[in-house]
Amino acid sequence: MLRQGLYVVRGLYRDGLKLIRLAGQQSFNRAHLPASYCHQPIGVRALTMSSWPFSSKPRDYSLPNESWSPEMQKLYDHYNALCEVEEEGEKKRGAWWRLPSYNRTLKYATGGRCLSKLLQAKARLFTRNIEEPGAGFEYVVFLNKPEKSCVCVFQAGHLLEGPPGHVHGGAIATMIDSVTGTLATYLSGPVMTANLNMNYRSPIPLGSVVLVHCALEKVEGRKTFISCRVTSSDRAKLHTDATGLFLTINVGHLFGA
Amino acid sequence: MLRQGLYVVRGLYRDGLKLIRLAGQQSFNRAHLPASYCHQPIGVRALTMSSWPFSSKPRDYSLPNESWSPEMQKLYDHYNALCEVEEEGEKKRGAWWRLPSYNRTLKYATGGRCLSKLLQAKARLFTRNIEEPGAGFEYVVFLNKPEKSCVCVFQAGHLLEGPPGHVHGGAIATMIDSVTGTLATYLSGPVMTANLNMNYRSPIPLGSVVLVHCALEKVEGRKTFISCRVTSSDRAKLHTDATGLFLTINVGHLFGA
Repeated sequence: MLRQGLYVVRGLYRDGLKLIRLAGQQSFNRAHLPASYCHQPIGVRALTMSSWPFSSKPRDYSLPNESWSPEMQKLYDHYNALCEVEEEGEKKRGAWWRLPSYNRTLKYATGGRCLSKLLQAKARLFTRNIEEPGAGFEYVVFLNKPEKSCVCVFQAGHLLEGPPGHVHGGAIATMIDSVTGTLATYLSGPVMTANLNMNYRSPIPLGSVVLVHCALEKVEGRKTFISCRVTSSDRAKLHTDATGLFLTINVGHLFGA
Repeated sequence: MLRQGLYVVRGLYRDGLKLIRLAGQQSFNRAHLPASYCHQPIGVRALTMSSWPFSSKPRDYSLPNESWSPEMQKLYDHYNALCEVEEEGEKKRGAWWRLPSYNRTLKYATGGRCLSKLLQAKARLFTRNIEEPGAGFEYVVFLNKPEKSCVCVFQAGHLLEGPPGHVHGGAIATMIDSVTGTLATYLSGPVMTANLNMNYRSPIPLGSVVLVHCALEKVEGRKTFISCRVTSSDRAKLHTDATGLFLTINVGHLFGA
């Protein structure tokens, strides 16, 4: 049901609870921005690149850390390289964008004062609530705007166990909800999950690296339909397939605004 | 995709990797057992009540702790009272059973030696991987055997955030997978999730207490169909409804046995 706080925050800002668009869907059309911006896409960029108002930048969990396996790093490098292309000696943005990821963007976006009254100050994004590198969800999402699709490289840590030695179905559902929802948000603005339908085909061993591929199926009014396939890193084995239905919302209603 | 390690362990035990039934489905028919046993149901009881072979008993996460809200405690007390009935001055088992819950049953069940070679020694059940009381999933499952149903009292901690101030859809999916799967396991033996289909109707505020009601729909060969409704604690508001399909498995295949 999530949309990563990161994206929802695009709609939130005020003395307390005013709605503005820190970075709206028009962010997709910034053809004039230099190629290096592909590493700081949408929403967050508006905060980080110019006038970050707080003492320190939050940790971007989508960047490599020492827990990443060589396989995870290799896949990261592969997609990250696609974020830049060289044309006539100049580096330009490619079709892919790496999406940064934080454990609580709202805290940073508002300075935390008003929202800490409204929300618990200790709240953390579910997928980023474990600080120990490699213990929980290690993942990075790359968006392909022209194709209206994305891929997530996901390494499942030892705290995600369900069946002995394998990843919990709820942890797989969490990644599917997060990645399909992220794509829906980029395509349709702030959304909430309305339906998730998942077929578990083959269990995922703890510690392994898988790919979560998502693609837009269709948009009908407020409804955005996303399909999803979780495969082995070489794409040969299908672990889970799923569909997600997302409804466009006015995020203000979450706060009674 | 999980079946809590607790239940899967029913099928696992040997020098290394032999399959036996520590407590099988016949556990349902222990009418001769005293009422007090309803607090130590199936599987674990076989380990804990007679010859617990290790130095200390593991923590049972389904028992009340200081983080539980008065509402959570009240619901616990309500269902726990139904686990015992008094007839002619004697206490007997009621229709309900409280299910204990551990963060890694296999570790305890085998002494950890063989399985630690096979699995990561640090692995923890996804729903019990946070030690801080109240921060993650606080829940307790009560099983109603005659009705082939169960109810889970669930208090959502601040580390389960998805939309600002609300529970992540993946965390809700995790509870649904866990509770439907637990019921399927009690009815059909070790199972794996084959399909989960969830409709998110209304977001769940962080910190609130909800009920997860599950009931058997039908059994067809290896397939067990479970329905599920996540409601407010007074049952007035429907947050999520879902169906789960589970396939009976031989747990040995998870280990290549």
